[in-house]
Amino acid sequence: METRAAVAFEAGKPLQIETVTLDGPREGEVLVEIKATGICHTDEFTRSGDDPEGIFPAILGHEGAGVVVDVGPGVTSLKKGDHVIPLYTPECRECEYCLNPKTNLCQKIRTTQGAGLMPDGTSRFSINGEKIFHYMGCSTFANHTVMPEIALAKVREDAPFDKICYIGCGVTTGVGAVVNTAKVEPGSNVVVFGLGGIGLNVIQGARMVGADMIVGVDLNPARKEIAEKFGMTHFVNPKEVEGDLVPYLVDLTKGGADYSFECIGNTTTMRQALECAHKGWGESIIIGVAGAGQEISTRPFQLVTGRSWRGTAFGGARGRSDVPKIVDWYMDGKIDIDSLITHTMPLDDINKGFDLMHAGESIRSVVVY
Amino acid sequence: METRAAVAFEAGKPLQIETVTLDGPREGEVLVEIKATGICHTDEFTRSGDDPEGIFPAILGHEGAGVVVDVGPGVTSLKKGDHVIPLYTPECRECEYCLNPKTNLCQKIRTTQGAGLMPDGTSRFSINGEKIFHYMGCSTFANHTVMPEIALAKVREDAPFDKICYIGCGVTTGVGAVVNTAKVEPGSNVVVFGLGGIGLNVIQGARMVGADMIVGVDLNPARKEIAEKFGMTHFVNPKEVEGDLVPYLVDLTKGGADYSFECIGNTTTMRQALECAHKGWGESIIIGVAGAGQEISTRPFQLVTGRSWRGTAFGGARGRSDVPKIVDWYMDGKIDIDSLITHTMPLDDINKGFDLMHAGESIRSVVVY
Repeated sequence: METRAAVAFEAGKPLQIETVTLDGPREGEVLVEIKATGICHTDEFTRSGDDPEGIFPAILGHEGAGVVVDVGPGVTSLKKGDHVIPLYTPECRECEYCLNPKTNLCQKIRTTQGAGLMPDGTSRFSINGEKIFHYMGCSTFANHTVMPEIALAKVREDAPFDKICYIGCGVTTGVGAVVNTAKVEPGSNVVVFGLGGIGLNVIQGARMVGADMIVGVDLNPARKEIAEKFGMTHFVNPKEVEGDLVPYLVDLTKGGADYSFECIGNTTTMRQALECAHKGWGESIIIGVAGAGQEISTRPFQLVTGRSWRGTAFGGARGRSDVPKIVDWYMDGKIDIDSLITHTMPLDDINKGFDLMHAGESIRSVVVY
Repeated sequence: METRAAVAFEAGKPLQIETVTLDGPREGEVLVEIKATGICHTDEFTRSGDDPEGIFPAILGHEGAGVVVDVGPGVTSLKKGDHVIPLYTPECRECEYCLNPKTNLCQKIRTTQGAGLMPDGTSRFSINGEKIFHYMGCSTFANHTVMPEIALAKVREDAPFDKICYIGCGVTTGVGAVVNTAKVEPGSNVVVFGLGGIGLNVIQGARMVGADMIVGVDLNPARKEIAEKFGMTHFVNPKEVEGDLVPYLVDLTKGGADYSFECIGNTTTMRQALECAHKGWGESIIIGVAGAGQEISTRPFQLVTGRSWRGTAFGGARGRSDVPKIVDWYMDGKIDIDSLITHTMPLDDINKGFDLMHAGESIRSVVVY
C-alpha cells in the first residue's frame, strides 16, 4: 500500500513529506494506522545528526497511537480495529530480560530494531524501490506503519489518540521512573532537575504516589507555573541560589532528597542530583540522555555513605502490561496530559513542531493525521 | 584505673605501648576489657597519616571482642560479665537513621565519635593528665576501653574472642555487603574485585547465600588457593587477560555479574566493577575506601541501561541486631574465620602486625591480650 510520511533523508535536514510504499505485515507483524504522534527530543537527536547511531533515510517518530488495520500470520493478541500504542521497548514475555522482574529492557528484537529493520532483517518502507529505514521500531511519522506484535500495547478505545500518543514515550518515561524504577513511597521528598516534558511527568508521578516535598530545579522561571500545576511544591532556580546548589537543596529537603531525578541529560546536573540525595538512603535516577562520550563523576564516598545511582529507560515500564494502566490513569484523571500538549499540527507542518521545540515554546507538539 | 594500650602519638610513627589512665564509665557508658583485637587497614590508614581526618594522640583499633567489667548509670541492656563486640557504627534504635529500614548509618554519636571523643564531648583516656583521643568510638588497642552502650553488641559466651573480634569489622563488612546491602539471591553470578580479607568475606557470604558463579579478580595468584577454599569458583588475574578486563568478565559470566563488589579502594576497579555488571539489573557495590579526593566515573548509559551503583559501610549491618547473628553463623560453621586469622601476637608486638600487613603476608593479624 501507499501512505504519507515525513522522511528524514539526511542528517541535519528538515523532514520531507512523501508518499511511501509500505509492504503488508508478515509473520508476527501488525499494520497500524497512526492517528497521532508526538514529536520528541529523541527524534530531534537523530534528525539533527547528533545521534551517532542514526541511520538514514528513515521515517522517524516513536510516540504514537493508532488503530490496527491488518495482522500478519501468527498474530494472536491483536485484531483489526484494536487501539494500540507503539512500543520502542517491546515486551516479548519470553526473553531472559522479560523473565527477570528487575528489568523492562526486552532484548528480543534489539539488534534488528537498532539497525532500522523489522525482526526478519528487512524494511517495509520504500520509495521507488529504494529502502527507507524504520526508526526505534516504530516510525510513527508515517500515517501507516508495520510493527511487531510484541511492540504494541492494546489500549482502551475511549481514550483520545491525540493525547495518549504521549504515553508512548514522555508520560511513561517520567511517571514510570517514579512508579516503576524509584518506587517512590508516600511522604518522600523528591528533587527533579529539568522541568521539560519529562520533568513535569516525574512531578505528576510523584504527586500521584503521595510525595511530600516535590522540588523542581530549572533555569527557566517560566516553567514554575506549569510545574506547580503538576504538583511541584518548591521551585529552585540555580541562578538565584547563592553559593553551591547541592547544600542548598540538602538544606531545603532537610537532609537531602529521598529520590532525585535528572531529566536534562547534563552530566553536571547528574552529579548534583546524586549529591543532593539523602545520606543513608537517597536514590538518584538518571533519565536524561547525555551527549555521546560524556561521563559522570563523583567521589565514591557519596555511594559508601548510602546513596545509590541508577538510571531508567522508558520509565522501567513493560509496555504491553504497563502502558494500558497509564492510559487508565489518564482517563481517570490521576494524571494530566492535556496541559502538556501545547501544540497540534497536521503532518505537513511537522517541521514547525521541531522549530517550536528549539524555541522552547512547546512542551509537546503532536501531529494529528 | 590504669590499663595498657598501644598509643599512636604521631602520624606515620610506630605505636608505643604505654600504661594509660582510663576514667570509669559515665551515664550510658560501659567499661569493657578487650580480650582480642584485629589489626585492620583502616587503623593503618589513620596511623600512616593518610586519613585526612586522623586525630593524634589516639588509641586506635576498632575490631575487638571482650567482656563487660562495669556499667555506668542508666545502662540497661548490658551487665558485668556479658561478652561484647564493640561497634564503630552504633545502633541507637531511635535516631532518624535507625528508624529508616534502608540504612544502618546510626547518626546518634557521629559528631563526637568523629572528633575522637565520647558522646559527652570528653575523652576517658589520658597519660599524665594529657588527653588521649578515642578512635572510631572503640579504641580496641587498649586492654580496657569505655564505650557507649549503643555501640556494643552482646554476643554468646561460648564464642572465642580471638576469632569473633574479626566480626567487629572485616567479616561483617564483607558478609554483610552480600547479605544486607546487595541481598544476593541464590543462583546469582557474583564478581569480587580484590581477594584480601574483605574480598574473601564477600566470597564466603556469596557462597553462604547460594550464589552460582563466584568470580574472584586479583593480581596476586597466591590468593587463588584460599579464595577457592572460601567458595570462589573462577579466578581471574587481570595480568593474564588479553584485551580489556570488562568484556572478558561479561563473557565469563554470560552477560555480566548480577552483583559485583569492589573490595580494593581503587577508582579504576570501581569502574570496572560497575561496567562488568549485567545490563538490565546488575548491581555494583563499592566497599573499598578510595584515597582522599579521588573520583569515580562512567558513562551514564551504563546506568540508563539498568546497572546500579551503590556502596556499603559496615556491611549494611545494624550492629547490635546483626553482629550476634554473624557470631552464630561462625559458631554454626556457616562461615570460616579461623583460616583468615593468619597471625596472632601479644600487644607488645602490635607493630609487627602492621609490618605483616604491609608485606602482604597476613590476611588478618590479631592481638590477644
